[in-house]
Amino acid sequence: MKLEDLVTPALVVDAGALDHNLRTMSEALPGARLRPHVKAHKCTALAARQASLGHRAFTCATIREVEGMARAGLGEDLLLANEVVDARRLARVEARVTLAVDSEATVDVAARDGIREVVIDVNVGLPRCGCRPDRAGRLADRARSAGLLVRGVMGYEGHAMPIEDREKRREVVAQSMALLVEAHAAVGGEVVSAGGTGSWDMNEWATEIQAGSYALMDTAYAKLGLPFRQALFVLSTVISKNESFAVADCGLKALGMDHGNPTIERGRIWFCSDEHASFAPEAPLSVGERIRVFPAHVDPTVAYHERIHVVEGEDVVDVWPVDLRGW
Amino acid sequence: MKLEDLVTPALVVDAGALDHNLRTMSEALPGARLRPHVKAHKCTALAARQASLGHRAFTCATIREVEGMARAGLGEDLLLANEVVDARRLARVEARVTLAVDSEATVDVAARDGIREVVIDVNVGLPRCGCRPDRAGRLADRARSAGLLVRGVMGYEGHAMPIEDREKRREVVAQSMALLVEAHAAVGGEVVSAGGTGSWDMNEWATEIQAGSYALMDTAYAKLGLPFRQALFVLSTVISKNESFAVADCGLKALGMDHGNPTIERGRIWFCSDEHASFAPEAPLSVGERIRVFPAHVDPTVAYHERIHVVEGEDVVDVWPVDLRGW
Repeated sequence: MKLEDLVTPALVVDAGALDHNLRTMSEALPGARLRPHVKAHKCTALAARQASLGHRAFTCATIREVEGMARAGLGEDLLLANEVVDARRLARVEARVTLAVDSEATVDVAARDGIREVVIDVNVGLPRCGCRPDRAGRLADRARSAGLLVRGVMGYEGHAMPIEDREKRREVVAQSMALLVEAHAAVGGEVVSAGGTGSWDMNEWATEIQAGSYALMDTAYAKLGLPFRQALFVLSTVISKNESFAVADCGLKALGMDHGNPTIERGRIWFCSDEHASFAPEAPLSVGERIRVFPAHVDPTVAYHERIHVVEGEDVVDVWPVDLRGW
Repeated sequence: MKLEDLVTPALVVDAGALDHNLRTMSEALPGARLRPHVKAHKCTALAARQASLGHRAFTCATIREVEGMARAGLGEDLLLANEVVDARRLARVEARVTLAVDSEATVDVAARDGIREVVIDVNVGLPRCGCRPDRAGRLADRARSAGLLVRGVMGYEGHAMPIEDREKRREVVAQSMALLVEAHAAVGGEVVSAGGTGSWDMNEWATEIQAGSYALMDTAYAKLGLPFRQALFVLSTVISKNESFAVADCGLKALGMDHGNPTIERGRIWFCSDEHASFAPEAPLSVGERIRVFPAHVDPTVAYHERIHVVEGEDVVDVWPVDLRGW
């Protein structure tokens, strides 16, 4: 199949760019130094490529991601880096599963539902999940008392990721990791899990980096000047045009919009509707022409699509189901 | 099943509010005066309710929506209110299908691929698809020369919908419809298809209104003071909390974000991440509590979910697949 044969909008990954991204990361953070986050791609076929490069431990954001990874034979060491209040499905997964906990309530859920291993999730500055650093030790005690194995700590410095100035970003990462290191001292265990695509080469404190977006990339991360290439785009078709603008069949249901408008090749986006991108083309276009749209945020973009088309040049060489969607 | 048994995040529709919305609209615009747009709910079970109230003609935005509606036995009169450059799948649908065209290229596609009926899509002010009003007549001539039946015109005054002041909105609707009426005079045919949830009771020019959002509603349309109730919410669970904020398990992959943040009951949203909503609760909450999140934009929210849970009070009385997703 050729790229031109695809029904649009179609999620497409450039095999060469993906390969470059996976190899660049694996060379810098080999094996267990990287715990790839599957939430960014939600695709076990892509995870299998990461595993084939030596990363056998993965990060998940939902129970369904854990279930799907286990079913795909990628369950050697799965961290659900998120809190849940019902872990019964998780306890039934045939894989090594570690669950994040950040409160007495979530520790008790883990123990009650038959989870064996946990990490203490620590708030390192992003106002999201995670306990206060000075409470991590007590939570670990409670978990151990309840019979859980505490593998260590995790803490995501997500508030550092959008900072474009590298030195400033590094400062915020260092401040955040000082909190995580403090918590780790009280908690113990071998794991200090943190980091992401924006801090992959500056987080010296984590024992493992939870990066996910680096594999496919998006226009938000592209602003950071990282060595990863834009591997993902939404292939679309020009369906309408006039003297001042054109319209492509790629809209809100094919794109994560929380980081703003996508970027379009050969033009400037005006706005997106449910199934349309209205844009000003740089040069005249014809109805029927194919055009590439680059999302601002990879994760919620992928979650809209049933499959990823892998291309080499104009050839579709593989089709991967986005099989970790839903909850 | 009870609401409390659902795995969260879960898309939920209040049966009473839905019923109120469907009946309110059907009483004002009975039968063929309304051509409900299925893009807002992407659910043939919900479309069947609309059909049972007398609306036998529907509006679709994608070929897959047309295919799914036909498969569900709802293919009496389907309008694909969008341009396509490959209509072969559409021509194979066993249903009455009418296709929008707005250029010589799309007229030629319709004729080439075996489509029988079209409407001329006219740009009435929203910079999206549609030909210039003064070109509609010539396009209709071309379509008829190619053997197509031209049923009339369509034109969506989408730029009027967000205008909160009712009189100003009405002015923009009137200006837009003046253009559509002008085009219709040149095109002929019985159909003048236009309108939406924001103009349902003020568009006097259209023979049929293409409203869709009225059935489920969202916080953007709620600002207009319409008689439709918020029927849709995403049920979520509080998974983390501390002194200043709480976190619910409802994020960017469960919500259309192009219209901004959702609204949350009993609190104020700070921001959403992939699987989280961080918010300031009005009063202390416990980990494990269920909380309702109301999306800003219904269409791209529904498109993330596999199913709609229909509830009466605390009882889940039905589960409807969101079976028109994808392309």
